[in-house]
Amino acid sequence: MASTVEGGDTALLPEFPRGPLDAYRARASFSWKELALFTEGEGMLRFKKTIFSALENDPLFARSPGADLSLEKYRELNFLRCKRIFEYDFLSVEDMFKSPLKVPALIQCLGMYDSSLAAKYLLHSLVFGSAVYSSGSERHLTYIQKIFRMEIFGCFALTELSHGSNTKAIRTTAHYDPATEEFIIHSPDFEAAKFWVGNMGKTATHAVVFAKLCVPGDQCHGLHPFIVQIRDPKTLLPMPGVMVGDIGKKLGQNGLDNGFAMFHKVRVPRQSLLNRMGDVTPEGTYVSPFKDVRQRFGASLGSLSSGRVSIVSLAILNLKLAVAIALRFSATRRQFGPTEEEEIPVLEYPMQQWRLLPYLAAVYALDHFSKSLFLDLVELQRGLASGDRSARQAELGREIHALASASKPLASWTTQQGIQECREACGGHGYLAMNRLGVLRDDNDPNCTYEGDNNILLQQTSNYLLGLLAHQVHVTGMCVLDGACFRSPLKSVDFLDAYPGILDQKFEVSSVADCLDSAVALAAYKWLVCYLLRETYQKLNQEKRSGSSDFEARNKCQVSHGRPLALAFVELTVVQRFHEHVHQPSVPPSLRAVLGRLSALYALWSLSRHAALLYRGGYFSGEQAGEVLESAVLALCSQLKDDAVALVDVIAPPDFVLDSPIGRADGELYKNLWGAVLQESKVLERASWWPEFSVNKPVIGSLKSKL
Amino acid sequence: MASTVEGGDTALLPEFPRGPLDAYRARASFSWKELALFTEGEGMLRFKKTIFSALENDPLFARSPGADLSLEKYRELNFLRCKRIFEYDFLSVEDMFKSPLKVPALIQCLGMYDSSLAAKYLLHSLVFGSAVYSSGSERHLTYIQKIFRMEIFGCFALTELSHGSNTKAIRTTAHYDPATEEFIIHSPDFEAAKFWVGNMGKTATHAVVFAKLCVPGDQCHGLHPFIVQIRDPKTLLPMPGVMVGDIGKKLGQNGLDNGFAMFHKVRVPRQSLLNRMGDVTPEGTYVSPFKDVRQRFGASLGSLSSGRVSIVSLAILNLKLAVAIALRFSATRRQFGPTEEEEIPVLEYPMQQWRLLPYLAAVYALDHFSKSLFLDLVELQRGLASGDRSARQAELGREIHALASASKPLASWTTQQGIQECREACGGHGYLAMNRLGVLRDDNDPNCTYEGDNNILLQQTSNYLLGLLAHQVHVTGMCVLDGACFRSPLKSVDFLDAYPGILDQKFEVSSVADCLDSAVALAAYKWLVCYLLRETYQKLNQEKRSGSSDFEARNKCQVSHGRPLALAFVELTVVQRFHEHVHQPSVPPSLRAVLGRLSALYALWSLSRHAALLYRGGYFSGEQAGEVLESAVLALCSQLKDDAVALVDVIAPPDFVLDSPIGRADGELYKNLWGAVLQESKVLERASWWPEFSVNKPVIGSLKSKL
Repeated sequence: MASTVEGGDTALLPEFPRGPLDAYRARASFSWKELALFTEGEGMLRFKKTIFSALENDPLFARSPGADLSLEKYRELNFLRCKRIFEYDFLSVEDMFKSPLKVPALIQCLGMYDSSLAAKYLLHSLVFGSAVYSSGSERHLTYIQKIFRMEIFGCFALTELSHGSNTKAIRTTAHYDPATEEFIIHSPDFEAAKFWVGNMGKTATHAVVFAKLCVPGDQCHGLHPFIVQIRDPKTLLPMPGVMVGDIGKKLGQNGLDNGFAMFHKVRVPRQSLLNRMGDVTPEGTYVSPFKDVRQRFGASLGSLSSGRVSIVSLAILNLKLAVAIALRFSATRRQFGPTEEEEIPVLEYPMQQWRLLPYLAAVYALDHFSKSLFLDLVELQRGLASGDRSARQAELGREIHALASASKPLASWTTQQGIQECREACGGHGYLAMNRLGVLRDDNDPNCTYEGDNNILLQQTSNYLLGLLAHQVHVTGMCVLDGACFRSPLKSVDFLDAYPGILDQKFEVSSVADCLDSAVALAAYKWLVCYLLRETYQKLNQEKRSGSSDFEARNKCQVSHGRPLALAFVELTVVQRFHEHVHQPSVPPSLRAVLGRLSALYALWSLSRHAALLYRGGYFSGEQAGEVLESAVLALCSQLKDDAVALVDVIAPPDFVLDSPIGRADGELYKNLWGAVLQESKVLERASWWPEFSVNKPVIGSLKSKL
Repeated sequence: MASTVEGGDTALLPEFPRGPLDAYRARASFSWKELALFTEGEGMLRFKKTIFSALENDPLFARSPGADLSLEKYRELNFLRCKRIFEYDFLSVEDMFKSPLKVPALIQCLGMYDSSLAAKYLLHSLVFGSAVYSSGSERHLTYIQKIFRMEIFGCFALTELSHGSNTKAIRTTAHYDPATEEFIIHSPDFEAAKFWVGNMGKTATHAVVFAKLCVPGDQCHGLHPFIVQIRDPKTLLPMPGVMVGDIGKKLGQNGLDNGFAMFHKVRVPRQSLLNRMGDVTPEGTYVSPFKDVRQRFGASLGSLSSGRVSIVSLAILNLKLAVAIALRFSATRRQFGPTEEEEIPVLEYPMQQWRLLPYLAAVYALDHFSKSLFLDLVELQRGLASGDRSARQAELGREIHALASASKPLASWTTQQGIQECREACGGHGYLAMNRLGVLRDDNDPNCTYEGDNNILLQQTSNYLLGLLAHQVHVTGMCVLDGACFRSPLKSVDFLDAYPGILDQKFEVSSVADCLDSAVALAAYKWLVCYLLRETYQKLNQEKRSGSSDFEARNKCQVSHGRPLALAFVELTVVQRFHEHVHQPSVPPSLRAVLGRLSALYALWSLSRHAALLYRGGYFSGEQAGEVLESAVLALCSQLKDDAVALVDVIAPPDFVLDSPIGRADGELYKNLWGAVLQESKVLERASWWPEFSVNKPVIGSLKSKL
């Protein structure tokens, strides 16, 4: 049945039930439906609604309030749900190519339901699937079909027990034996066991295993991916020589079975090598289209970026849910008031606004950035697929790598801190598991460390920026001599043209009213990035001149220079893209004010964390600069508080998916919470161990003699 | 058997096993045993060892690696363990009076084993017990005996479903009926159900219930505590009219049964009123030793402080465990290095040092503060018990209330952020549940919101400081006219004598070497508190002059002024006390350097978060000030890294208690981790649901028609 945009239960955007949130909804400065349509577009809204409705109507996805699932049961359920996603087949391959944004949208929908489900599906279909597709060749296409039919189940096995970040030190080996035309996959000891591999614990039948490839004569050629069967699909029992198991309970995402594997001289056919980057002839000669290892590494940057860009999207979905829960709670929870008789919603307090609204703005800004970066990545991948070897394509790869390496830390940390603030802002009720803030925090947490630890990734981005500067200084003496020496495909570094002249600029806004625009923050950010770039460059050279090796010099500069440089650069890019988005002519006039405020709030709030540096470098001076910035953030919070509930209505999934009694759309905070508590198992029942209190009384101090 | 301080297995401080941590231990600048003795004293070390050994030798406390405990099973275990603590009777009442610091030490020992156990024991013995003792009178002494014999089990029922922070709006009523000489306890509706009450879910037989006391003629006299029997101790079944249950799973502390209760006209004898603050005669006349409600409230501040001071201690124990785990991990985990062949411990990286060592310093500074504040509280309570009604006693109560209200937020947030940093600094392995960082984070979390939400508590402290200033301005015109107008029993505000003249001071340290002392930070903090005090005072008056009510004005000033004021004040006090502690003549010469560095690092690192304000107010100017501060923090981290393992050895409990494979004292990171993984349940076993993959294959898209 076709659904309409407005009206009725089957509407694309149905009305919310009347209730305690009405007051805020009535006060909103804009129509939430208009903003939803502008942000997502009708097609995307329909796509998401289809997914959410399917899950809500399928008993396999039923929520069980207060369930105390065992690890094993949760993993079983998550596997069954993953299988069911294949039966729904929400997104065909053709649709994927036609509307690439539906890929992150599907992942966000599944992740909003349960991060473990999104992870399980993503690791099999996209991570394992893409690895086989992009690292393999024609002879591996048969696997692709099996992946999409779920005839095999896959995982991506790179990290080992003792090596994560430093992948070059991975110790699993793959020795080629020309006599049988096989590779011998071997783990020298348990420290080289593949470890942390998602899907490997209980379900995977196949793994892309990274191992050092060696040909006869002990010539080794660095890490290469092999497709290795680790379990028999007919029995799910391990293959001979493979010791595979589950690493156990994690802080979150426990529906996902992370595992380990040790290989004892496991023989696989020569064709198991995913040979896009290098191959071995039947006789045992190593051949590669790339001249050296570094070049081969460069070519693989694209696939690293893809993981990081996905994580940005996974992080943001958690933040969307958390702010939705905390803001609906804040609009209905009343505590204290101007008189003893009248209590006001906690959202009315400037403190609560200041704690939560910047994260709401962050959701909008980062979500827009995430989609735009995903589209950039699609462009890069299309270039790769069509064999584009132009300089622009290479430069695009480097720029996306730099942006992905810093936006993954920015998004995962913003979400980590945001969920924590949301949880605390809901007080005790935020600590009750059923309200979901704990699960969101636990499920988001690995986003901060996997696919590259955040702090290490930021070094990639600062190195990129330093590399640009070094190149220009080398080529043109001083960059300023040439009017256009910084150009990148996505223009994220073009503002550096103004370097170093921009360093003479000062903050010249003297009233709060003049500060309420993201343009103010943009100017400050451009100065800040230039300042940090110069400082980092000088500090690095100073360290080297005083005898530090390159390794030492970089380590010494990272805390105080490289790290803030990378963060400021990516924040600038996020602010820039959202600023342009909300100021484009196609924005409906009725949405301009609220979007402009969100953009300004995110920008100024982010900037305010760098206030000390702005003073230190001389961009800020005097008491007023810092005061204006602080007051502008508070003023924007106050301006946005009446729009907060409507802004949440745009980003929140249906109640079934949000799954939080204190965050339901009807705003009946206490009825929902009380109802959910009474639904829990054995809530009123006497504990089974009651005689341990009533009958078996302790004799006080009876064990004292044992001390 | 008597144990000796050094040597042998039964030694008070036994040697650590040899292993990968030896290198760092050998490089330490001091003897960890000497520091342990200096910090704790031999008696306290022996007391803790007794407790830890008893738990380790008792199978009831056995750790079960990888256990996936159900909620019910965990609550049973925790109850049994709590009962066993009574059988050990580690701390007699006489010992408690003789060595009051053994109280927080016992709680820390139990909390290091499991926060749920500490909470369960603390809520019954100390919170419920103290409430009966300090709010009741002679007629309630019979309960005290039953509490210590565990004949009854207690809980403290203040908060309701819809009211936490605003306790004045609590709606449970206690109407007095002179006909039967009973109170009728009643919950008007479910929103007034007592909620979140620890121990109430499954175990408590008695509750201290706060209700509005009303006597005939509908005269109500505000909240009063009643001791109400909620379950029959013989059966653990609810008493008639009481609906009592468990609120369900929380983010952490799931061994503790938090519960709810609704009372339907439950009649309790007149004597159930805990009548220290007010009583009702048999005929129904209300009598109170206090003139008005406000005075009665003031008298109860002491017991509020006591809860907050305990939380400081509970938070810090979690941080101790987390930094111990993360630093031992960092000293043994190797990743990257100056050459491809040589990998170095991650603790050698300035980034890792900067992430972790300030939290190690925070443990030492906050732990010292926590003990000193506890002793202050003991002094206050002794005064109360002896009936001291002097002005000094009242002032002491206010000062402790101000310090407790801000140190609870400082300790719980520092721990929250510290555990998160530790968890991330251990990468993936920090995300594995068995390594315990997740449990620590989850168990610490409520410290941020219970016994007063952190942000609300900070307002208490800023109000205290503003009150002092307002009083002085009122009495003496300008405080500076009088040489000694700020005096408090604990001297925490005496430095305000220098106000406002101190505001002319500037930061005058120009080299990093001159900055490596906590005296530098102390001077800056004194300026900062004076600056924020003036700014807050002016802002508040400005708001009031422009027509804001007191309520509005305070709310408008809190984010930008009151909050940083309260935090800066308590940080100053923590820094001041630790600075004095490490500079006292009794510090052994061999410990002075390392303690001085810890003090300087905590002080400068904390101060650096206020760098923007230091610039804004003019204490800092020029690029150098900020650079010197930042460089000093990094220099201290570098100076302390070789001492880090030995500093951890002082604060870490035995391996059995620490319970983290990556944090064990032998430093055998991978052997311990691998061994623990293989101990988990069904680690290598095929999943029970294997046919769901192998046999019941999905038909791709088979459900598409349902969409």
